[in-house]
Amino acid sequence: MHSKAILANRFQYIGHSDVAAILQLAERPEVISFAGGLPDPHTFLLDEARELTAEVLAATGQAALGYGPTAGIKTLRTWLAEHMTRQGRPTSIEETVVTTGGIAALDLICKSVLDAGDTVVVGEPAYVAALHVFRSYQARFAGVPLDESGMQTDALRDKLRNLQRQSIYPKLLYLVPSFQNPAGLTLSIERRKALLDIAREFGLLVIEDAAYRDLRFEGEAPPLMAALDPENVLHINTFSKVFNPGVRIGWACGPRHLIDALILAKQGQDQCSSTIGQYLTTAFAQSGLIEKQIARAVGIYKRKRDVMLSALAEALPAATRWTRPEGGFYTWVTLPDGVDTEKLLPASIEQAKVAYVPGPAFYHDRSGQNHLRLCYSYVPEAVIEQGVQRLGQLITDAL
Amino acid sequence: MHSKAILANRFQYIGHSDVAAILQLAERPEVISFAGGLPDPHTFLLDEARELTAEVLAATGQAALGYGPTAGIKTLRTWLAEHMTRQGRPTSIEETVVTTGGIAALDLICKSVLDAGDTVVVGEPAYVAALHVFRSYQARFAGVPLDESGMQTDALRDKLRNLQRQSIYPKLLYLVPSFQNPAGLTLSIERRKALLDIAREFGLLVIEDAAYRDLRFEGEAPPLMAALDPENVLHINTFSKVFNPGVRIGWACGPRHLIDALILAKQGQDQCSSTIGQYLTTAFAQSGLIEKQIARAVGIYKRKRDVMLSALAEALPAATRWTRPEGGFYTWVTLPDGVDTEKLLPASIEQAKVAYVPGPAFYHDRSGQNHLRLCYSYVPEAVIEQGVQRLGQLITDAL
Repeated sequence: MHSKAILANRFQYIGHSDVAAILQLAERPEVISFAGGLPDPHTFLLDEARELTAEVLAATGQAALGYGPTAGIKTLRTWLAEHMTRQGRPTSIEETVVTTGGIAALDLICKSVLDAGDTVVVGEPAYVAALHVFRSYQARFAGVPLDESGMQTDALRDKLRNLQRQSIYPKLLYLVPSFQNPAGLTLSIERRKALLDIAREFGLLVIEDAAYRDLRFEGEAPPLMAALDPENVLHINTFSKVFNPGVRIGWACGPRHLIDALILAKQGQDQCSSTIGQYLTTAFAQSGLIEKQIARAVGIYKRKRDVMLSALAEALPAATRWTRPEGGFYTWVTLPDGVDTEKLLPASIEQAKVAYVPGPAFYHDRSGQNHLRLCYSYVPEAVIEQGVQRLGQLITDAL
Repeated sequence: MHSKAILANRFQYIGHSDVAAILQLAERPEVISFAGGLPDPHTFLLDEARELTAEVLAATGQAALGYGPTAGIKTLRTWLAEHMTRQGRPTSIEETVVTTGGIAALDLICKSVLDAGDTVVVGEPAYVAALHVFRSYQARFAGVPLDESGMQTDALRDKLRNLQRQSIYPKLLYLVPSFQNPAGLTLSIERRKALLDIAREFGLLVIEDAAYRDLRFEGEAPPLMAALDPENVLHINTFSKVFNPGVRIGWACGPRHLIDALILAKQGQDQCSSTIGQYLTTAFAQSGLIEKQIARAVGIYKRKRDVMLSALAEALPAATRWTRPEGGFYTWVTLPDGVDTEKLLPASIEQAKVAYVPGPAFYHDRSGQNHLRLCYSYVPEAVIEQGVQRLGQLITDAL
């Protein structure tokens, strides 16, 4: 009876699902998948999680199984406010909201701020799932290229001036400033300041997605964008990488009038995030186990990054280059112009038995054909080398 | 820097939050609150939940703490398909999607189907949180009154004909057919069939919200709307009332092309529902504990309903009437025309120390001033009587 005709206009923006396609690639057991951006389950503190869960259910079982406030349980919001304050962004409880992971925070921001046709500034490349959220709100995009120091602020200013001449005033600027998904790049402190100045000049609200920030292998962390400009940055984050994704707990932190809007929007999104997940996360955070898990995770991911970078140096032909992330999950490979990583993918999976995500998934205009994203976080160390060798052979043959 | 000006147009539709106001009423310890629609925590099988959680984490800890598929973990979707089939709606796994509670399912439906300005048919009264979701998608409303047998189908047909003359073609019809929130009424089988015929005639997709259906105290359950017309009904449901709200697990079931759209929309909502919540729910459902908890809950809620109905008969003046629910959480009180339950609320809380939800929260046009909703599920039996006495005195004085 109902055909596609019943679907809302926004489905014309969403198109198809890059994310679903990516996750499906990871499912075939014979394929070594560098596609999905999944944490290594060995980073989870499973015994501690078991103990904590038993404790939480014994001490606060009825509350943990009941409904919680839409904004999040008070103990977790208190921890978040203290945590953000320690990170250099003085924060009150009312400036925090607990969300069902990081994407849910972004969904709430879009629900609160975007009208159909509004323009969002994103990197070229940008996080694929964030592009999906923006598309689902019928956003238009303005893309700004990245280099080794992250989003190019001169290009950003030029882009915004050009748009202004066309009477286009973007509302949001979205970025992952540390260990960016997909390129693994980190925005330098100079660029952070320049970008925030430009954002204020052009009336853009900045969304700082800090999902990977705590997974730093080396070097010094630049300050949070939210610390540099608390009034014009909405910080979003997740416990998926430093506790586990199964509890589905993330958060947003920003100026109170925007957090109030997010809380109101959340009543129409899921009313409250998993209560048991919030209690577990609070217990985990309060016990200092986040630091313990981060230390373990950094050790595991650093080794994997090293294995992958060495393997890439050995296996990839001279005409290719790739980023050297100082943390996080990803490296970004650039092949010579003319190589099409989307066209190459079927052969990569069927013949080489190795999966990656082709560049266009990360471009608002689906360009970027000569790039691909490799995720080193999930695949066991020993297998990374083998997968990169297969990929190197495939690319060598393709050139 | 950013004022309200940055907020999206939809915030003009949302207005303020009735739900938040309701939940705040319930927070003051000296107030007996019949406001929030919360389950009684004594219905939770806490010991069983503790045991199951330990078992789940021991057996499948890493998976339960990791990401799951957007549509839900396979074992839970399998159980859902079997469950819906047993309920008379033959269902494949692909016709199910796991959601972060019932409201999240409704959010996904709206995201998939509604464009700004589309019309949704709702009862007069209707579930307040559902109205909030529709408003957040800038929906317009067409209201249809209820009587003792639920939504009045003759009035529905008249309303749709009238709209058609104005070239207005609603897309969705939303209802809670069993033990409706807020009125406690159940749509008769004759009405279900008539309503489904009308929906087909006018090209309306029906959303059946079955949140309370399993909490039947007496009488025979009419068939699911989804069983009567599987192709034109999207069934949404939640484990919040038959397991616990803390796991935040609900679902939708319907024609595959619509479920596919919901899954795609969910990638931009929260990517996946709490994995640990899904594993716990599956273990609980597979162990037959849902039936056990329903039996316990029905016993508890039936006694509370009886206490409230008796107390109402004693305490309320003759000019008032109220519904006699055969299940669920709510009774709906109608006062003489001219009494304004919104204006009465401050005195009710400050002086009588008893809280309810005023009628207008449940009306798309914020009418219904002479009604109020009482929830008997949460307040202890002994306290229900006391609260109703206070309320009766307040109303008697007001008349």
